[in-house]
Formats: sequence, C-alpha cells, structure tokens
Amino acid sequence: MRYWDDIRVGDRYAVGQHTFSAAEIKAFAGRFDPQLFHLDESAAGRSHFGALCASGWHTAVVWMRLMVEYHRREDEALRARGDAVAMLGPSPGVRDLKWLKPVYVGDTISYVTEVTATRSSNSRPGWGLLTMLSTGVNQRRETAISFVSTTFVARRPASP
Amino acid sequence: MRYWDDIRVGDRYAVGQHTFSAAEIKAFAGRFDPQLFHLDESAAGRSHFGALCASGWHTAVVWMRLMVEYHRREDEALRARGDAVAMLGPSPGVRDLKWLKPVYVGDTISYVTEVTATRSSNSRPGWGLLTMLSTGVNQRRETAISFVSTTFVARRPASP
Repeated sequence: MRYWDDIRVGDRYAVGQHTFSAAEIKAFAGRFDPQLFHLDESAAGRSHFGALCASGWHTAVVWMRLMVEYHRREDEALRARGDAVAMLGPSPGVRDLKWLKPVYVGDTISYVTEVTATRSSNSRPGWGLLTMLSTGVNQRRETAISFVSTTFVARRPASP
Repeated sequence: MRYWDDIRVGDRYAVGQHTFSAAEIKAFAGRFDPQLFHLDESAAGRSHFGALCASGWHTAVVWMRLMVEYHRREDEALRARGDAVAMLGPSPGVRDLKWLKPVYVGDTISYVTEVTATRSSNSRPGWGLLTMLSTGVNQRRETAISFVSTTFVARRPASP
C-alpha cells in the first residue's frame, strides 16, 4: 500500500478477476447463505433466478480477497524498489452495495476499484481516509455488483 | 416467510446470536480477507485493533446465515399451522453497512432486524419490497455492525 499522501482521486486499480464454479458457490452458500437457489441446480432452475447463482455476499467477499492480494503484490513491488510500505487500516464500512445481476456458474467477474475521495482523519492522527467505488463486471460486460467503501490508510510520517 | 402483505413497518426479528471463535475468524479470513490482524494473534496484537478480530464481512455474512435459519423456523411454524409460506426473493442490495466496533475472539453478537419500510414492486408484479435495519450488538451492549438491506418478498396471490 502506498501512503495516503501519494494516492489521488481517480487512481484506478484493476483488482483482479474470478470465475465462480458451482462447487464454490454451493460451499459458500452452505456456510453463509443456505437458500436453495444458491445450493441446488434444480431448485434454482425453478426460482426467479432460473439457474444456480452465487450469494451476493460471496460476490462481495471475492472482491475483498482480490483486493488484499492486489495490495500484497503492490507491497512487494514497493519493497523491491526500496520504497516504504504503508499500513492499511480498518474500514468504517460500505455503502450502496448493489447486486445488479446474478452471478451464474462459470461467470467471470472482473473487479475494478477507483478512488473517488480522500480526506485526512480528524479522529486518528497519522491516518487518512480513502473512499472508493468498486464494480464487478461479467464477461457479458454487465455490471453484477457495485459498492462504495471507505478505508483508513497510514499517512507518510513527518520528516524528522 | 409470511407474505409481503402481512408484514408491517416496525416488525422486529430477533434473528439470533453467534459467538466468534479464533478458529472460524481465521478460517474465514484465510479464504476471503487474509489480512494479518484477522489471521495471526501476535500480528493482530501489534495492529491498531490490539487483538485478533473478525473480518467485517464475516460479521455481516453470519447475519445472513442466521436470517435464513430464522426464516426456516418461521416457515415450519407457518406450515404447522396450515398457513401458506411466501417466497423470499432476491435482494437488490445493502446500504450504510457500518463496522462500528471490532468483533474479537469470544465476542457474542446478537442480531436484530427491524422492518423500516414496505412498498409494492412496480418492476416485478406479484412481489413487494421490504427495507430492514439490522444491527449486531456484542455482550458489552456495543453495536458492532449495522446496515440497511432490501429484499423482495412474494405478495399474497389474488383470490380466485
């Protein structure tokens, strides 16, 4: 992670992409969202979805994993250049999480995150806040998920 | 699930409670949010959180599971009385998802969901929409998570 001070509105991250298999859709749903249209092909076929599809929460948390992996690669690149790595802090939350299209078996979702606002933190000295718009688009170029998240990022330490 | 027509603003569901163990906090984080403060006690101790704590997404999806289980129990009770069971439809999304306090190992979160708005659907005849405010409160009576979700619920079929 770069320091908050080095991040600008409009910075865009190609976070990564993920193809949802039937097995992992069912595994996630069995654990966290055991509704029949996420668990069973024939029940899903009779539902409003028309076929087995992923829990919306599943589509969201795959973004989280890809984002953490993205920052890991970025941190490695920063270290390789001899640059300092900033700490990623807690997230106060997410707003406007929209499940716009079902994610069906075999769909590949490409996640992109864009910085839409930055501000320094009053409550936590040494930290800044980022606001980011994230979208997940399927292979038919339909946006399946979008949401706005905020997160704390460490500020560059003052020079001694 | 009762029909949309039988649900009123102010209806409140004691969705259930859940105690977060270190093992499941790490299992969820390893799969979906592999940040060190969700994975490793000593790294978490050195972080801004001060101790191992659950991914905010984990705290959210446990509500989802408890809510599905709640509706299952409700459906059984409806069937036992000979009442019709309504179909729970897709969710357009969630807004104002706030992670207000960390969820530490051993914390027990009690989830309550309250209906805050109802409207019939223009886009899907036969369905209505519910808006619900959900909160998760820990054993110290601190609200750890809150969010507003919407979901489609089947309307009572017109009499023949």
